[in-house]
Amino acid sequence: MGEDSLDGLRQRLAEFARARDWEQFHSPKNLSMALIAEAAELVEHFQWRSEEASYRLPPETLREVGLELADILIYLVRCADRLGVDLLAAAEEKVAINETRYPVERVRGRAGRAEEFRDPE
Amino acid sequence: MGEDSLDGLRQRLAEFARARDWEQFHSPKNLSMALIAEAAELVEHFQWRSEEASYRLPPETLREVGLELADILIYLVRCADRLGVDLLAAAEEKVAINETRYPVERVRGRAGRAEEFRDPE
Amino acid sequence: MGEDSLDGLRQRLAEFARARDWEQFHSPKNLSMALIAEAAELVEHFQWRSEEASYRLPPETLREVGLELADILIYLVRCADRLGVDLLAAAEEKVAINETRYPVERVRGRAGRAEEFRDPE
Amino acid sequence: MGEDSLDGLRQRLAEFARARDWEQFHSPKNLSMALIAEAAELVEHFQWRSEEASYRLPPETLREVGLELADILIYLVRCADRLGVDLLAAAEEKVAINETRYPVERVRGRAGRAEEFRDPE
Repeated sequence: MGEDSLDGLRQRLAEFARARDWEQFHSPKNLSMALIAEAAELVEHFQWRSEEASYRLPPETLREVGLELADILIYLVRCADRLGVDLLAAAEEKVAINETRYPVERVRGRAGRAEEFRDPE
Repeated sequence: MGEDSLDGLRQRLAEFARARDWEQFHSPKNLSMALIAEAAELVEHFQWRSEEASYRLPPETLREVGLELADILIYLVRCADRLGVDLLAAAEEKVAINETRYPVERVRGRAGRAEEFRDPE
Repeated sequence: MGEDSLDGLRQRLAEFARARDWEQFHSPKNLSMALIAEAAELVEHFQWRSEEASYRLPPETLREVGLELADILIYLVRCADRLGVDLLAAAEEKVAINETRYPVERVRGRAGRAEEFRDPE
Repeated sequence: MGEDSLDGLRQRLAEFARARDWEQFHSPKNLSMALIAEAAELVEHFQWRSEEASYRLPPETLREVGLELADILIYLVRCADRLGVDLLAAAEEKVAINETRYPVERVRGRAGRAEEFRDPE
């Protein structure tokens, strides 16, 4: 990824953990737990809001939600780093898979689980 | 973010959803649910593995885990986009907050909830 | 809880794990991960459905959702058991707390985080 | 379930929501979100603790964990109620399925995903 900003974040987080001697806590297992805990804080903002309301959050809530998204990205980058996974390369591979799995002509306007779209009967 | 690769992913995902008429399903509320569901698939890989084992996954499992991390990034980027949040800017802001909240000399070698490290005022 | 059916489930699950030598995997930490992974399978059924549609699931989906709810209960009972927590007693204590924290006259028709309803001191 | 205590909890929670006019927020979709948010608060207690440490929580933490377990049960019972699912009957059905899916002689001492145990090669 070279001088990519996601890679810059990866390096900064690695340094953050090393300086605090937190590498001992940052096993992939533990980081997956921290990640889902942050994902839940995002969910919590939306649980009693309607879908419509989730688009127009009050400014202070939007700011908090932005920081929850940041927390998720932080643990995601950190988890990928500890596993030696290139996150952007994996995302590009996955998008390519999705483009094959969900052909436009088959799934247009219908959301659902992948398996529903596999058998065209 | 300009020509950043995370921004490239954001654009590609927006186009993916638009082409399939899936924008109607991609409310922030719904995307937060999809995101946590993907985070749980990551957790599932680690739930019966020890911390030690979570570092040395079998190659096939590591590949699957990489694609789970990709799924999380995909929904994260998509959710930020639907909310108009600049994900990398938010992450940089949050890392700066964390650097203040967890001073090296105070938290070295001790993980825990933020509140444990705050001033005892 | 005596001859309560929740206690019967607790005993049956303890026996299930013992017979398979799975107690070694059933640490509270691991069970919390298994529990959230099951909770996510529930969420997955609802992520692209509207709130309205979530009330009227197709019969086959409702059956699957019922089994996801069962999986959550199973890990919940198992986690409480491994921690020595009396689940029903804890629930009764928590409901009593909630009745105090959310007085009818204050919160009627307004959902939200607890802190929004607390005294503004 | 008759005079079962889990059914008593179900009735008490239904009354709690009705008195506060919160039924409007308690769609199965929203309750699944609240449930997973509570499950994440449980996970959070364990994310930086080792498996061993997860068995021997400090008393104050154990009390908090007990109340998190209670919160999960509360939303689980509430979600089942809104869907018309008999939670204990579903759990009994699922345990019976698991007893068939994971025969003692096949899985003894090996945890893993169900699919790993299906093919006895």
